[in-house]
Amino acid sequence: MQSSKPNSEQNPVQAAVSQVAFLSVQDLLELVSLVGMETFISGLAKTIEADFKRWSLFDKSPRFAAHSPDGVIELMPTSDGQNFSFKYVNGHPKNTQKGLQTVTAFGVLADVDSGYPLLLSEMTVLTALRTGATSALMATYLAPKNSQCMALIGNGAQSEFQAFSFRTLLGVNTLRLYDVDSNASQKCRANLLQHGFDVTICVSAKEAIQGADIITTCTADKRNATILTSDMVNDGVYINAIGGDCPGKTELDKDLLLRGKVFVEFEEQTRIEGDIQQLSPDFGVTEMYKVINQQVDGRTSPSQLTIFDGVGFAIEDFSALRYVYQLMSQHLPAKELELIATPDDPRDLFSLFVSKNIMRKAG
Amino acid sequence: MQSSKPNSEQNPVQAAVSQVAFLSVQDLLELVSLVGMETFISGLAKTIEADFKRWSLFDKSPRFAAHSPDGVIELMPTSDGQNFSFKYVNGHPKNTQKGLQTVTAFGVLADVDSGYPLLLSEMTVLTALRTGATSALMATYLAPKNSQCMALIGNGAQSEFQAFSFRTLLGVNTLRLYDVDSNASQKCRANLLQHGFDVTICVSAKEAIQGADIITTCTADKRNATILTSDMVNDGVYINAIGGDCPGKTELDKDLLLRGKVFVEFEEQTRIEGDIQQLSPDFGVTEMYKVINQQVDGRTSPSQLTIFDGVGFAIEDFSALRYVYQLMSQHLPAKELELIATPDDPRDLFSLFVSKNIMRKAG
Repeated sequence: MQSSKPNSEQNPVQAAVSQVAFLSVQDLLELVSLVGMETFISGLAKTIEADFKRWSLFDKSPRFAAHSPDGVIELMPTSDGQNFSFKYVNGHPKNTQKGLQTVTAFGVLADVDSGYPLLLSEMTVLTALRTGATSALMATYLAPKNSQCMALIGNGAQSEFQAFSFRTLLGVNTLRLYDVDSNASQKCRANLLQHGFDVTICVSAKEAIQGADIITTCTADKRNATILTSDMVNDGVYINAIGGDCPGKTELDKDLLLRGKVFVEFEEQTRIEGDIQQLSPDFGVTEMYKVINQQVDGRTSPSQLTIFDGVGFAIEDFSALRYVYQLMSQHLPAKELELIATPDDPRDLFSLFVSKNIMRKAG
Repeated sequence: MQSSKPNSEQNPVQAAVSQVAFLSVQDLLELVSLVGMETFISGLAKTIEADFKRWSLFDKSPRFAAHSPDGVIELMPTSDGQNFSFKYVNGHPKNTQKGLQTVTAFGVLADVDSGYPLLLSEMTVLTALRTGATSALMATYLAPKNSQCMALIGNGAQSEFQAFSFRTLLGVNTLRLYDVDSNASQKCRANLLQHGFDVTICVSAKEAIQGADIITTCTADKRNATILTSDMVNDGVYINAIGGDCPGKTELDKDLLLRGKVFVEFEEQTRIEGDIQQLSPDFGVTEMYKVINQQVDGRTSPSQLTIFDGVGFAIEDFSALRYVYQLMSQHLPAKELELIATPDDPRDLFSLFVSKNIMRKAG
């Protein structure tokens, strides 16, 4: 790996592709720090929105999943014909017992014309940021006008990112927290108080949703839970349900789903992974790209109950990689990985060994 | 990224998984130089052989392919239940016009129990090495005893790796080269002469195979070519046909295939990608893991015509990653990528931002 400024004297194609840009965890933190969390989130949401507008251009492949007794490793590829991306992401609930993350991720952005990778990026933090940005972006179409107060149920690793995203895109500054583990709520409040949020910790989900315009559920338990029942929820609110995101993991009562108008990212995937896995396949849902493209309505009245059944989709990761790739070129010194071999003559790969004493220990 | 010696004082789990080992192109060249090409190849072949012996343990998924007008980008995942690996590889025939490689690759080895990636490695050079090692490994079961002379048809990027592998595993030192582009043959001869090979350049494939015990075809043209016809080839030789490796790209005449006993890596994949794509699906072939496990015979008589229809399989990449991961820990200083976020409390991902002035440019 080497750090260098781009050298315009070099063959531009070679210079552009012979090494792969690298964005480490610290680099991403630095990048967010340099531009500011709000600016970062709002630019990311704009990029996701722009890519949802180009929905039909994307390859929408099912993710590849390798299951094991303790978890799953997934590869999530997509392409718009110009760039290809994939995310590697694992899900191992028992990892926290070992002090490890339940979910870690990294991703690659590549150039379709040459097939060369352009960027390798950490995506544990970036996924948290894109998940928040996606939720808030959808809320700009689905939440009540002038929303002020959000209930945040589930105060784990994703919660602060939701808070920042909703304040950035919708101006929501009042938060009502609830988690089965009160330590998680304390942690979340401590993180948010120093950034000027108005935060109340509640003793139940029912208490947390009192007066809330928006209800975000981002709980971690891998089971069919019932965080919200239909009788708890008034008309006119917006439910941002993102914790129900894999088979056997749901958050909302079936009757609540049936009562609301449900919006999803990619129907085929959400039927398997989302809260609507509880419903019959003919229950009608609306894909968000249609709303964003103004082909169908989002929220149509103040009294409507709208629900975003978010599971996380490969295009959002594509957008996130595309966004940081562009942003890092403006704000960070180039840092590159020597990941791609570039012999002078492509047919002479062996020439790379010529300067090496490869026979030293020949047997 | 940082270079450091492993620190046994640290929490071993954290120390082992919080960063990801990185093997760059130069690192791999250095590693091969340190242990010697022959030792490297022979260890790699042993690892591939050991993994083929454990064949039934592996997930054998189809590769994921994203096609575009100029090429293809593929992800090739596999797992033995303990480790997971995938290779990113592109194929862009027109790249050479731009001075780029037709094929570039990198790969990741991960720990199934935690889902954490362990190693990111360049795989352009490593794939060339594992392809040579696989060919020669299969030849130890299929080639005539005491083979001395190999025809090498197609003298591009893979040719020298074939030569070294066959000398290392079978003692073959005499090579008869042919390529439609005589510059390629000159390049190949120049690379090999300095390593003590006995090399003759021939004017045709027919001339090249005279007296050869082994015929290796590793041509690059993406078309249904006929490098060898049945009347050209005597009984008793071994054909190592590795250039026919994707739909529409074959090297051997159909009649030649019908005459020989054909061996493959993974039948399901080779039916689509190998030379046998020309034959009906009921043409009998033998999977190599059965030969390696002594469940079925390889070569049964000196007069038999044996053919390895090699296309490259994910388990070989898995073996290569596993091999270099072990070897680099013995021979190279640790070099790690800061690719995985590790907050002290896994539920407090946001804490990573706490020391950063993330509000600096807040809008």
